[in-house]
Amino acid sequence: GVTKTTRKQKNSAIRGSRKAVVVTKKTYLRKEWCKTQPLKQIIREKGCLRTTVINSFCYGQCNSFFIPKSDKADDKPTAFMSCGFCKPRKYRWILVTLRCPGKKGMRFKRKRIMRIKKCRCMAQDVQFP
Amino acid sequence: GVTKTTRKQKNSAIRGSRKAVVVTKKTYLRKEWCKTQPLKQIIREKGCLRTTVINSFCYGQCNSFFIPKSDKADDKPTAFMSCGFCKPRKYRWILVTLRCPGKKGMRFKRKRIMRIKKCRCMAQDVQFP
Repeated sequence: GVTKTTRKQKNSAIRGSRKAVVVTKKTYLRKEWCKTQPLKQIIREKGCLRTTVINSFCYGQCNSFFIPKSDKADDKPTAFMSCGFCKPRKYRWILVTLRCPGKKGMRFKRKRIMRIKKCRCMAQDVQFP
Repeated sequence: GVTKTTRKQKNSAIRGSRKAVVVTKKTYLRKEWCKTQPLKQIIREKGCLRTTVINSFCYGQCNSFFIPKSDKADDKPTAFMSCGFCKPRKYRWILVTLRCPGKKGMRFKRKRIMRIKKCRCMAQDVQFP
């Protein structure tokens, strides 16, 4: 069973930054999402024929929070901070060859492409203001 | 257990990075949230009596996306990127005075605190990997 009775904290403020972190994390459970969606990426280059690469893109909503705290040891104000970014977790660099027709015949150009395989909410580095 | 209902709505990939941006933004409408929640922040300092400041903290879920693209002009791979961070939009720096009892009587120490008034999802600077 549950040990502590949770009271409704609608009007009362949470006491302490650490408790706020716990409350925040409980609210977050199962809520964030980050999709990996197929994309036909069009590769262009001046003077070359365009081509298409099957790729993916990422979009979603990731958890973030900013909870002010004060340290005993540290004189400067600080915070518990976290910001999630829905971005590629698995990817590979590939080379795409483009055909570039010219007066002296066909030439070839290579372009480096990031082929995304899997997206995920991942913590982004953030700075205290 | 929780099962994710994934609709096979569109088997076809989106064509073009710009179109992906549009699709992403449409999906996002009204979805992100960022709360400003009351917090009793406890201010501590070594040798001083602790005190409490009525403050707020931020938490929520903000939009983010990562859509690979290739520029005609630019040879390097790049992306349309955005990452939202639920953080203080309005705040003020305040000074809190702590009472520090000692052998020579009471001393006072000041601590700088960030008093948060309003939180919002705001774009965070992100770098291409």
